[in-house]
Amino acid sequence: MKEIIRIGKKEKIEDFISKIEGKKPLFICVIGNTETAKIPSISAAGANPDITDYTPAADMEYLIYEKCKSIEGVPITPDGIPTPALITKASIDLAEISLLVASGGLNIHPQTPFLEFGGQPGKNISNGLALNKVSSVFERAKILGEQISKAVDYLVIGESVAGGTTTALGVLTAMGFDASNKISSSLPKNPIGLKIKTVKLGLKNAGIVAGDLKNEPLKAIKLLGDPMQPVHAGIVIGAAERIPVLLAGGTQMSAVLAIVNSINPLISKNLAIGTTRWIIEDKQADLKGLIDQINPDIPILGANLNFNQMKYDGLKAYEQGVVKEGVGAGGSVIASILSTKGMISIDQIHQKIKDNYRRIVLNE
Amino acid sequence: MKEIIRIGKKEKIEDFISKIEGKKPLFICVIGNTETAKIPSISAAGANPDITDYTPAADMEYLIYEKCKSIEGVPITPDGIPTPALITKASIDLAEISLLVASGGLNIHPQTPFLEFGGQPGKNISNGLALNKVSSVFERAKILGEQISKAVDYLVIGESVAGGTTTALGVLTAMGFDASNKISSSLPKNPIGLKIKTVKLGLKNAGIVAGDLKNEPLKAIKLLGDPMQPVHAGIVIGAAERIPVLLAGGTQMSAVLAIVNSINPLISKNLAIGTTRWIIEDKQADLKGLIDQINPDIPILGANLNFNQMKYDGLKAYEQGVVKEGVGAGGSVIASILSTKGMISIDQIHQKIKDNYRRIVLNE
Repeated sequence: MKEIIRIGKKEKIEDFISKIEGKKPLFICVIGNTETAKIPSISAAGANPDITDYTPAADMEYLIYEKCKSIEGVPITPDGIPTPALITKASIDLAEISLLVASGGLNIHPQTPFLEFGGQPGKNISNGLALNKVSSVFERAKILGEQISKAVDYLVIGESVAGGTTTALGVLTAMGFDASNKISSSLPKNPIGLKIKTVKLGLKNAGIVAGDLKNEPLKAIKLLGDPMQPVHAGIVIGAAERIPVLLAGGTQMSAVLAIVNSINPLISKNLAIGTTRWIIEDKQADLKGLIDQINPDIPILGANLNFNQMKYDGLKAYEQGVVKEGVGAGGSVIASILSTKGMISIDQIHQKIKDNYRRIVLNE
Repeated sequence: MKEIIRIGKKEKIEDFISKIEGKKPLFICVIGNTETAKIPSISAAGANPDITDYTPAADMEYLIYEKCKSIEGVPITPDGIPTPALITKASIDLAEISLLVASGGLNIHPQTPFLEFGGQPGKNISNGLALNKVSSVFERAKILGEQISKAVDYLVIGESVAGGTTTALGVLTAMGFDASNKISSSLPKNPIGLKIKTVKLGLKNAGIVAGDLKNEPLKAIKLLGDPMQPVHAGIVIGAAERIPVLLAGGTQMSAVLAIVNSINPLISKNLAIGTTRWIIEDKQADLKGLIDQINPDIPILGANLNFNQMKYDGLKAYEQGVVKEGVGAGGSVIASILSTKGMISIDQIHQKIKDNYRRIVLNE
């Protein structure tokens, strides 16, 4: 079984992999809160809309302490399926990957050390004005990327933002990309109609139409984005002049890539998307179709995770399309396999995920 | 001319240098504010006592932007002598050393990205209660140290805290070390009587006597320390199990070392002090005498900076004992020389400091 699915131009894929194989990554997880997540039925990143504010902080606490501090248990979907942080934790523990938490803007701060850029939580994008201070946050994140790139081999940058696929749709639409049937969801049945309605209302309230912000990515974030985006894109742009960067996530990463590519297309040779098989095989979305519109040179790597043989329903549910990605799950699996040159196998990661599930969900 | 002064056991010195030579450092500068700095005549880290709150933030902005944002010009002593950040900036720019800012607890936050640990500014230590939340801040800093040590070769950890030698005296005294005539000062005439009086009052108000907190370093910080200390010591303890750490500073670093050594003496083989010639030659202080009381195995490395030939009075003043150290100046010089295996010479650093002075102080 192939452990990493490879999509894109063969030469670009091999070039990127050769640059990171056997090297030590730093994994940065950028977290943020947006009121957009509280629109009923739009996000599964939390047991109910109000608790989505706690999801990013709790994810980070789980990664660091193996136990959340801000909530009981771990973040779950309304159906009780646990956070993809279980996958991330298995990977970074096995390969001893370094983790830094970065705050884009939060209502609930994690009880961990974190990087601060002066950002604030995002408003509901249907208002047509989601964020303040996007430029200054972006500039600070760029500085962090420049600085850290002098000290580490490469970066894996993930996210935890409830509501993040809707804000990704917002930014992509404002920038003129055809994303309406290509954006994924943490729910097995993608509430895409609701997302499109939210974005349309946001465009209307912002007084713009799709494509108006083709060359104004920071304005697109300000009007229709979320607080993760300027930090993520800033770090990528700051770092990728010097080192490779794996954008770790699902279709949210296409919005980050659109922002990055618009501001500095020259760094694309140092970029790849790292995601999960569930995103790549998602019939209700089209990550490849999004990336091809933005920059077809960017490889997509997919962690070939398979939970069909798992004996726990909470993990098997991932095969029915629940959750799919988040907290840099796919990218962290890929980094753990490549950084150890395959010494860590996907089977070991499966085993460790099972152990994590037993400990944290079943309390065994 | 020897570029790096070496003090301590030859074997320990050579072992430490061999571990970091040719390797890439990450420089972390831990900053904090304490009301202790506002005691008249106690600190030269700012043109007047009230502005000392701005010094750490402004130092960081200068390092990153080559221009302060929170104040006009750069931090100066009451006599107009500029911040040692000019030395740090010369070194990290020449050797392309990565910089992360870490906040211990601030009234004025830098307009840069920074690491946050949940700390608060410190009160005047003469109260006998200086800080809250020392344990949780320390634990978070330890996590940061553990995490970052998986991704980088070694750490250089400096500080910018106005009033920091007085709080160092506070912690050392509470822990029972004989520090009263060994602590340095940013002033040419060390106001040691005032510092001792401040610490004595603090001990009295805390209801303890010197040495009572021999084995309670975190309590010593809480009663008589500053917000830099738990973050600095936490990062050191978290990181030094895995990688070498250069404690970059003057006699303030003896307080950090006392805390670290009390909590985990086993990591001492990965530690050294990095300072300047001005600290080593300071007749009104005794860094070696402090380190020998704490752990005589710890090497002291000194950047052999010499400003006698400088044509600018603002730099020449360093030879009269003004400033001496701060913002990790000595450690950053040492790291720039060692990381480049001497490709960067102290003469190049002198030249670059002169250029920095011309640009930022003389506006040429």
